[in-house]
Amino acid sequence: MAASSGKPAGASGEVRKLRQAEVNLPRVTQLSEYIAPCDCRRAFVSGFDGSAGTAIITEQHAAMWTDGRYFLQAAKQMDNNWTLMKMGLKDTPTQEDWLVSVLPEGSRVGVDPLIIPSDQWKKMAKVLRGAGHHLVPVKENLVDKIWTDRPQRPCKPLLTLGLDYTGVAWKDKVADLRVKMAERKVVWFVVTALDEIAWLFNLRGSDVEHNPVFFSYAIIGTDTIRLFIDGDRTKAPDVKEHLLFNSSLADEFKVQVVPYKSILTELKAICTGLSTKDKVWISDKASYAVSEAIPKEHRCCMPYTPICISKAVKNSTESEGMRRAHIKDAVALCELFNWLEKEVPKGTVTEISAADKAEEFRRQQADFVDLSFPTISSTGPNGAIIHYSPVPETNRTLSLNEVYLIDSGAQYKDGTTDVTRTMHFGTPSAYEKVKPSKECFTYVLKGHIAVSAAIFPTGTKGHLLDSFARSALWDSGLDYLHGTGHGVGSFLNVHEGPCGISYKTFSDEPLEAGMIVTDEPGYYEDGSFGIRIENVVLVVSTKTKYNFNNRGSLTFDPLTLVPIQTKMIDVDLLTQKECDWLNDYHKTCREVIGKELQKQGRQEALEWLIRETNPISLRH
Amino acid sequence: MAASSGKPAGASGEVRKLRQAEVNLPRVTQLSEYIAPCDCRRAFVSGFDGSAGTAIITEQHAAMWTDGRYFLQAAKQMDNNWTLMKMGLKDTPTQEDWLVSVLPEGSRVGVDPLIIPSDQWKKMAKVLRGAGHHLVPVKENLVDKIWTDRPQRPCKPLLTLGLDYTGVAWKDKVADLRVKMAERKVVWFVVTALDEIAWLFNLRGSDVEHNPVFFSYAIIGTDTIRLFIDGDRTKAPDVKEHLLFNSSLADEFKVQVVPYKSILTELKAICTGLSTKDKVWISDKASYAVSEAIPKEHRCCMPYTPICISKAVKNSTESEGMRRAHIKDAVALCELFNWLEKEVPKGTVTEISAADKAEEFRRQQADFVDLSFPTISSTGPNGAIIHYSPVPETNRTLSLNEVYLIDSGAQYKDGTTDVTRTMHFGTPSAYEKVKPSKECFTYVLKGHIAVSAAIFPTGTKGHLLDSFARSALWDSGLDYLHGTGHGVGSFLNVHEGPCGISYKTFSDEPLEAGMIVTDEPGYYEDGSFGIRIENVVLVVSTKTKYNFNNRGSLTFDPLTLVPIQTKMIDVDLLTQKECDWLNDYHKTCREVIGKELQKQGRQEALEWLIRETNPISLRH
Repeated sequence: MAASSGKPAGASGEVRKLRQAEVNLPRVTQLSEYIAPCDCRRAFVSGFDGSAGTAIITEQHAAMWTDGRYFLQAAKQMDNNWTLMKMGLKDTPTQEDWLVSVLPEGSRVGVDPLIIPSDQWKKMAKVLRGAGHHLVPVKENLVDKIWTDRPQRPCKPLLTLGLDYTGVAWKDKVADLRVKMAERKVVWFVVTALDEIAWLFNLRGSDVEHNPVFFSYAIIGTDTIRLFIDGDRTKAPDVKEHLLFNSSLADEFKVQVVPYKSILTELKAICTGLSTKDKVWISDKASYAVSEAIPKEHRCCMPYTPICISKAVKNSTESEGMRRAHIKDAVALCELFNWLEKEVPKGTVTEISAADKAEEFRRQQADFVDLSFPTISSTGPNGAIIHYSPVPETNRTLSLNEVYLIDSGAQYKDGTTDVTRTMHFGTPSAYEKVKPSKECFTYVLKGHIAVSAAIFPTGTKGHLLDSFARSALWDSGLDYLHGTGHGVGSFLNVHEGPCGISYKTFSDEPLEAGMIVTDEPGYYEDGSFGIRIENVVLVVSTKTKYNFNNRGSLTFDPLTLVPIQTKMIDVDLLTQKECDWLNDYHKTCREVIGKELQKQGRQEALEWLIRETNPISLRH
Repeated sequence: MAASSGKPAGASGEVRKLRQAEVNLPRVTQLSEYIAPCDCRRAFVSGFDGSAGTAIITEQHAAMWTDGRYFLQAAKQMDNNWTLMKMGLKDTPTQEDWLVSVLPEGSRVGVDPLIIPSDQWKKMAKVLRGAGHHLVPVKENLVDKIWTDRPQRPCKPLLTLGLDYTGVAWKDKVADLRVKMAERKVVWFVVTALDEIAWLFNLRGSDVEHNPVFFSYAIIGTDTIRLFIDGDRTKAPDVKEHLLFNSSLADEFKVQVVPYKSILTELKAICTGLSTKDKVWISDKASYAVSEAIPKEHRCCMPYTPICISKAVKNSTESEGMRRAHIKDAVALCELFNWLEKEVPKGTVTEISAADKAEEFRRQQADFVDLSFPTISSTGPNGAIIHYSPVPETNRTLSLNEVYLIDSGAQYKDGTTDVTRTMHFGTPSAYEKVKPSKECFTYVLKGHIAVSAAIFPTGTKGHLLDSFARSALWDSGLDYLHGTGHGVGSFLNVHEGPCGISYKTFSDEPLEAGMIVTDEPGYYEDGSFGIRIENVVLVVSTKTKYNFNNRGSLTFDPLTLVPIQTKMIDVDLLTQKECDWLNDYHKTCREVIGKELQKQGRQEALEWLIRETNPISLRH
């Protein structure tokens, strides 16, 4: 799911230009994992355009940190001016420790304060200070100075969402936020995350590809609302009506529209008017610049905002919308897989044409808006590049001899999807040298089932479920270098906080009924194949035999209803329980998606679905 | 494992006296979980004498925080002057939040700076400051002022340990520490944890019951060693020889003996002589007073010291010693259980007499020094009090109708043991009202096996294994409110950092081959019974079919070899894999402990062992 910037410029010349100063280039702008082309500065200087990475350039060195999903891709995209720092491996230093080890005494490290989260600034500044260096804000972004053809910041029209999609009016969301502000005795709330602003106002945009958000800030007072947004976007009739500009509203719900760039001056002006005890609430992941605009004594910081948590717990309108979106998405994938089964043997299907076909089928579905991320369509060795996106230079033809992995999703007006299936169009294992892909597939499936079927007490954090996904792989000495699941937005970002399932534990919030996450263990054999099985699952309450301390129990209900290829399963490795889970899952797929395929008159795809959902049984 | 203070004084009068000032009374003195009677201040004011708890007294309130192991005990021991704060439950406020909610504006909260860890001070001070209050050090401990018959600080003789017990000479440990100091450019290292000092010098003491440590501090310089210790303890001939006082040592290994109380003045004097860049290394769990004696710019703080981590990874001499200790310990328990089976039907055995008998059998073993904690001997409803210790007022008679739980261990010169077995001397479930104890026992056993048999990659942190222990319980809506395992010292503290297995994630270090932890899931039915199955297990390397990224895999090797009562198992709930694990485990018990019982001529216990280790089989 690489950030879709324009083509990255060659790295070495840019690095030379940047050596005029040291500069740190984190990927984060306004808390966004996915960014507009104008913000792809790291891709511009390093060549690496994956969705996660930080580049640091000193007089002598240029280094780029990224995680296990991108080790192969980054190594391919960067030239030898760059050192790849593999995060998560034992011997890889942190950015701070590395800086301390390479910098000459008393160095100054520059960073654009608008693109570094304040919590990260604090951490880095502390370590550098301890070693006698200084972290300094560089207000004029040094990359922008040398990036002569930097694109404009997008400013696309807004889309309004009614109650039938959101379940709650934006006025009620603001009122609810004010209750939470009052509980904490907070008089101002600064919203900096783009998806939080979109959720709060029931608005969507398309400033960032695949992410239905728009560049903006918001400041909610006890009786004022300021929305910082550029262009005439709020003047469109439907937006004016949605924001109730012409209705006789109470003052506290009147939205003041302010230019995007005036956030810092406006926020500073607000803060000069504060009384001694007044507090301003802001995420500690807001940029250092915005955070510092609030005097420390007035700042109230927390890792997650109440909006972030409310947004994560989907209401019934949202979760029913997500269900509908996943049914449509499954229809598109049944069509795709049926088409692939017929076309792959002809030797004419490539990774790119398969991805295009997937998009074509999705576009036929109601309320389709966009893909939710660039389709990962990969066959054979490309499958081992976890966030691979096919380009003409790497494009492989799908064949009967290789494992094919497709990780894709869409934005529908009623929900966001994200699904991975791994399949073989010939006979798996016939051509495999290193290890049998069926064996690995089955371990991954066991892990997927272990998470999906897990029952756990209310209040459990997602990281406590991560090992369930890995246990079968661990038993054979295997593993994968990414988390098991992430939160998914409701017609919003496909990666969304604050919940997830990962071995990393930093500040994940407990899972609650209504939250939506992915369950996506994998296994990647470098140079050979990649396997991942991903469903989007809804956290639901479940009844258990007993109920310790009256806490209640939770489990997962799969929203994704796409067959898992049984041909890839080594049934000897399954338990009866796992076999039953799979057959039940396929039964649901057949019933729910079959009905929809029928309704849409997609007979051939329906036949494919029925074939693929035949029950399996253990041999003994 | 309650701290064995003298009888706690009645609470209410003491609370009144203390109301002259607000005072916070954490359990920690010098990083010790178990403390000497003179340090049991919280037990003195509150009446609650469990091993974990913090009392806070304000003008209007008195509140005591403890964790799930002690909810029942604390409720019984404290009078209604006190509010019990159940840590870990959703609605229980943190100490800081509670203080903020009850204190009048601009309050001063006093705490003895010698008994609060500096990291805890910082956290509490920050929250209080944010709410307009102040945390202030009260140098004269207010509890001591009203505690007229406060016992003296113990000062018992030292025990020296040779290479056959420690594997590494103290000189080599100091030299190794200095290498780590040089790596971090640190010129002084302050050792504050009692077990770290004992381990570093290969010395043991008996100042704290059940914990073979002695009151002391140490400061290691690049060419000096200062040991802060009272009495003439270092003048005993064996200690003089052990510390090489009379040998012609290089200066950097000469131990300077300094009075215990002079730690603050001596440390301050050292710090006045520091050059600008000199660093002093100290644990951030050292007391605030000692930590603050080092000026901030010279202080180098980390959650775990290199001593703590070296100590946790047992060398082969230590792990072989631990193995021997566990064999002796198993002999004592086979004798005990054989005796109980004969005596319980007579109706003459009580919780106290059973605990005494266990101690009697342990004392017969070579190199026995002490118990490693007060024996938890509990039957029926007392079993649900997780850290119960029988006293005459609560003492129950063991019967054929109740579940009996015994959690006990010993200090031998070659190792520390800690084992829990749960058994029934009649027919389980015949008299059970709420839920079948056999069913619960089997879920606990499944959890125990899931952890013990887990295979996981090198570098895995213990908290990632915790859910394996709970999964079978969770499936039925059950759980337990304590961690699954803790580190165990080598003839040192029975609870030892930095590794463990818990749903709590704070700063546990990755498990490494050579580390020793417990595996002790449980289930507690308030008012009815308690179940826990605990082994001490050694982390060992293991071969797997594949070896992803060449990381290597680890698993656990049980050091505890005591039969698990098969009568308590509902075999219908076991998988074949679990059944095989149990039979293998019992086979090892029979072979290893059988041989030792034979050697010690304990025929009757041997027959009991053989009976109890008969293989079981699944019904189908």
